[in-house]
Amino acid sequence: MDYALAIDIGGTNTEIAVVGRDGHIEGRDRIPTTAGGTDIQSYINKVAQCAAPLIEAAGGVIGAGVVAPCINDTTAVIEGATNLPWPQPVPLGALLGAAVGCPVYAVNDANAAAVGEHAYGAARGMDNFIMITLGTGVGGGVVCDGHLLAGRNGYAGELGHIQVLGGEGRQCGCHRQDCLETYCSASGVTETARKVLADGYPDSELHGADPLTARAVGEAADRGDAAAIEVWRRTGEVLGRACAGFAAFTDPEAFVFFGGVAASFAHFAPALRQAFDSHALHLYAGRVAMLHSGLPSSEAALLGAAGLVFEKEEV
Amino acid sequence: MDYALAIDIGGTNTEIAVVGRDGHIEGRDRIPTTAGGTDIQSYINKVAQCAAPLIEAAGGVIGAGVVAPCINDTTAVIEGATNLPWPQPVPLGALLGAAVGCPVYAVNDANAAAVGEHAYGAARGMDNFIMITLGTGVGGGVVCDGHLLAGRNGYAGELGHIQVLGGEGRQCGCHRQDCLETYCSASGVTETARKVLADGYPDSELHGADPLTARAVGEAADRGDAAAIEVWRRTGEVLGRACAGFAAFTDPEAFVFFGGVAASFAHFAPALRQAFDSHALHLYAGRVAMLHSGLPSSEAALLGAAGLVFEKEEV
Repeated sequence: MDYALAIDIGGTNTEIAVVGRDGHIEGRDRIPTTAGGTDIQSYINKVAQCAAPLIEAAGGVIGAGVVAPCINDTTAVIEGATNLPWPQPVPLGALLGAAVGCPVYAVNDANAAAVGEHAYGAARGMDNFIMITLGTGVGGGVVCDGHLLAGRNGYAGELGHIQVLGGEGRQCGCHRQDCLETYCSASGVTETARKVLADGYPDSELHGADPLTARAVGEAADRGDAAAIEVWRRTGEVLGRACAGFAAFTDPEAFVFFGGVAASFAHFAPALRQAFDSHALHLYAGRVAMLHSGLPSSEAALLGAAGLVFEKEEV
Repeated sequence: MDYALAIDIGGTNTEIAVVGRDGHIEGRDRIPTTAGGTDIQSYINKVAQCAAPLIEAAGGVIGAGVVAPCINDTTAVIEGATNLPWPQPVPLGALLGAAVGCPVYAVNDANAAAVGEHAYGAARGMDNFIMITLGTGVGGGVVCDGHLLAGRNGYAGELGHIQVLGGEGRQCGCHRQDCLETYCSASGVTETARKVLADGYPDSELHGADPLTARAVGEAADRGDAAAIEVWRRTGEVLGRACAGFAAFTDPEAFVFFGGVAASFAHFAPALRQAFDSHALHLYAGRVAMLHSGLPSSEAALLGAAGLVFEKEEV
């Protein structure tokens, strides 16, 4: 079988794995992203050292896929990533290719899950889907006509910063108001929970939640807490209205939801579907699947990196 | 030079032309779309008869491009076009290919202008742009990473039916409210004009316009009518806010505006730019060009059909 080297560069750790064409992770290791201090070549050398035994155990790899924040999908240069330790721009692809001796393909972290979902997850075989990552922030990855959209500067799919209809004026970190992220990120869900609790529900267990988090709201809903259920209903409704607009852009077969907040997919899916179907144009209403990610969160980025290698190879 | 046969099927007429690779229309003719009654083969024969002398004069064509409502870009089948005379679905591409003896490529009428603009107009050389057609309705064509987006069923880019933020509840023909089309189509502009006149402007020449149309509002603005200028300011503002959301989807280099309402581009462009730049995420604000179409409206569809042939040939 063919194997790919998969590298997921985060602010804290760099995860390194060898993945088979079937999506099985054969071997896996990690180094701190700060292992080389601010010296990029020292870091690259440590990545290569860490990868070498994994590659050897697999009998070689056909290419390397790298996931990183603010990496240009085409040039594999990182620029503007505030939580990485090296002076930027960093020509990561070129440096890594020289160190590991194989072709390197890059995808920014917002889009990695979409590639992984397409290769190994809920969107396998789909040429048209929209991936929405619901976590600390809200991100998007749009696959249309079999192609992951990049756009002029690689900023296609910033769906978390599309403003929602009928918002209540929530302030976003981007200095604008009512971005989708202010409702459907972890902190957005928490904010909705505060509003729901202020509206009533004196018996809700969420009054005692300390801290009040999206995870706590999910667990309370699991236990049938009425306030928590209302929080997810509102979250699904905002998300469904937003998706109704998104559908008109690329006519997708499905939306796939990934990330920590999507762990409560079962709680928000009914309102999501209803809001989508009642707000979408007739061409899309009732025709677009709403799916929970098929990837374990700890593997999604690595599977995206590996999937990229196998997809690029086929072109 | 190479030539393409270009066929633009409208509800009333079918325009037929031979176009050179440079975009020059070498010869052109038309037949009524109802020339064969409800018999599609009879219609196809008349198209071929009409095209034959044009093709002969050019010394042959390398392919045919056809523009039609509700045509599937991939299969070249027309289905659900209510203003065409034949029983549907119609396998137009297959029938036409047999009649004219060359490869046939199809594009639906909403996307034809985008292809033409990319090949010969304001978006020449751009891999990332969004075309917005402002006419009887509002349509869109999205080019991302050099590719005209089709989507699952060819319905990508229905931008006229994305709902706008802060709307006043206008009813759309699609049975939903506040679609972009209800503000920026010809009738949407007329509706805005009625509202502006109701707000005041007793001296406006638009009070005497009979009928009150988008064209009349454009001509009044040309003469400096304050009410007309206000209509275009409001139109540009709604459009700019909408484009701010659209930009996050595909990270475009430019928006290109086409169609009858876009004849007043100079009147609505300042408000459009300002609204875009103040509502778009920082990644896009101030970085996206707003352009008026570079194609004569009477040639845009034919140039789109021809451009399609030359672009497909290069793949």
